[in-house]
Amino acid sequence: MELINHQFQLAARPVGLPKPSDWHYAEAPVADPGPDEVLVKINYIGLEPAMRGWMNDSRSYIAPVGIGDVMRGFAAGEVIASNFAGLSVGDHVSGLLGVQEYAIANGNAVQKADTELAPLETYLGTLGMPGWTAYFGLIDIGKPAEGDTVVVSGAGGAVGGVVGQIAKLKGCHVVGIAGGAEKCSYVTELGFDAAIDYKSEDVMEALGEQCPKGIDVFFDNVGGEILDAALANLARYARVILCGAISQYNVTDAMKGPSNYMALLVNHASMTGFVVSDYLDRVGEAATALGGWVASGELSSREDIAEGFENFPDTLLRLFSGANTGKLVLKVGGD
Amino acid sequence: MELINHQFQLAARPVGLPKPSDWHYAEAPVADPGPDEVLVKINYIGLEPAMRGWMNDSRSYIAPVGIGDVMRGFAAGEVIASNFAGLSVGDHVSGLLGVQEYAIANGNAVQKADTELAPLETYLGTLGMPGWTAYFGLIDIGKPAEGDTVVVSGAGGAVGGVVGQIAKLKGCHVVGIAGGAEKCSYVTELGFDAAIDYKSEDVMEALGEQCPKGIDVFFDNVGGEILDAALANLARYARVILCGAISQYNVTDAMKGPSNYMALLVNHASMTGFVVSDYLDRVGEAATALGGWVASGELSSREDIAEGFENFPDTLLRLFSGANTGKLVLKVGGD
Repeated sequence: MELINHQFQLAARPVGLPKPSDWHYAEAPVADPGPDEVLVKINYIGLEPAMRGWMNDSRSYIAPVGIGDVMRGFAAGEVIASNFAGLSVGDHVSGLLGVQEYAIANGNAVQKADTELAPLETYLGTLGMPGWTAYFGLIDIGKPAEGDTVVVSGAGGAVGGVVGQIAKLKGCHVVGIAGGAEKCSYVTELGFDAAIDYKSEDVMEALGEQCPKGIDVFFDNVGGEILDAALANLARYARVILCGAISQYNVTDAMKGPSNYMALLVNHASMTGFVVSDYLDRVGEAATALGGWVASGELSSREDIAEGFENFPDTLLRLFSGANTGKLVLKVGGD
Repeated sequence: MELINHQFQLAARPVGLPKPSDWHYAEAPVADPGPDEVLVKINYIGLEPAMRGWMNDSRSYIAPVGIGDVMRGFAAGEVIASNFAGLSVGDHVSGLLGVQEYAIANGNAVQKADTELAPLETYLGTLGMPGWTAYFGLIDIGKPAEGDTVVVSGAGGAVGGVVGQIAKLKGCHVVGIAGGAEKCSYVTELGFDAAIDYKSEDVMEALGEQCPKGIDVFFDNVGGEILDAALANLARYARVILCGAISQYNVTDAMKGPSNYMALLVNHASMTGFVVSDYLDRVGEAATALGGWVASGELSSREDIAEGFENFPDTLLRLFSGANTGKLVLKVGGD
């Protein structure tokens, strides 16, 4: 039986929000894996805010996706053919497999997923790259101490939800910022001490109320006015962690820089950026910690599962309109 | 003989650049020092960019100057009466003595100046608060390593010139940014490897040429477009030190935040602010290091001496037009 692969190839570099014509939907037979390679039938594709940046032709932490190349993306699926000693047919894996139905990858380039610990899609969220991102940004840069006030923007998203839960495990007072009543209710369910709805509240004022001693750690996924509101409420020696700036990814003129950045000066505070690939050599540490908390029930996870591989372009846009709660994943094919 | 003191009292909170009517020029007899106090005849007043911030009625690292209060300022002079055991008539001292001709201060609140090591006015620059600022910002936050590329904005000013010289002593490649040919020539005389004239050069492009391996440490006194140009040229794990933002102190709408702040994210870089008062308990360390380098001739100093106490308002404006080279001090009275 010849397998047919479908994939989204980058066709154009978007201006502002991506549109369906920025990709070409291509069809081709599935090839055989080479030495040390596996063939993976993809079940889930993770939709990442970072995908927008990968489409730009500009200097960054990773090369842009080339025009005509398969769109970069994290995905999880099942090994259906293996020339790699460490993986067998039937194993589940995740990795940077691309926005496609089948992928061939070197066995060393994928991680094995334990589907007894958590469902496969969780390995694209809490137990995957977003979870590692939350872990390293908060622990390594934020250095939260017991009793610290930790604020997280994008708290209803895949990274933000994990950041807040880890901060609670570390004994912090944790405030999440999210858009809309539903997300705020989810944030509270996750155990955050408070949720601020940026769509209906004055964030600057609400932070003042929820953080009477000031913000010790601000984990920012959003940028823009929310970053400015947090800067205006920093405590002395605060740490601001720059993980993303989703409010700014689709602007067509210059990004809005944080007008209140001099708050760093008067508070002896720091703002430090990172991407999770900076920590590739320490992924085992994050995986062990996160897996342990999931196993003990101290860390919960939610994925927002969209159906229909062919809907990838429109599904991606849900990230930028803030429509998802928890990790947004695209289910590929049937069960 | 009754001594008459003149002083500048804050009369109004400026909008944009300060104007002479923002101060009231007052005259009053000099009082006698109380217990543990000294009476100082002021010879020099340091003009600081920070003075502009002190005039605003806004939350900062230090309380604003009150309307009717003597304008805050660092000054140096001679003790002419002493009730403090550690200081005698004829000693030279510096401290936060205010913009006036005579000051009464607690003996513990002033530092004794060794005028055999350097002229008194140097204790308002390289051997005073600006020198300590350069020292702690660069050493404690910048952590320059041998071979690092260090860039300094406001390199022709009191702080910037010292930063660059210390960075050279630490074995770094040092580039200064200053306005105009004269200042750039001064920066080169101080031993910087290169000077970029922001008035005649494209700073972004020039930094690319002068810093082929990227900027490891950026010491910023200026903000605005120069900060953005530096961010666009950061090396991995760069440290940006926020010491000031003189380009933004007199804007009447919102400050310009750094549009390129996501360069911190892609480079795992940090931006950390401070004010010298954060290090008051370690001033001895800076004074010893700076004094040693001045004594050995490894650290040179220049003051730009303006005459005429009554010209304080106009002289202060020279800081914001960039007219001074080296530490701008106002000479008070005759010799």
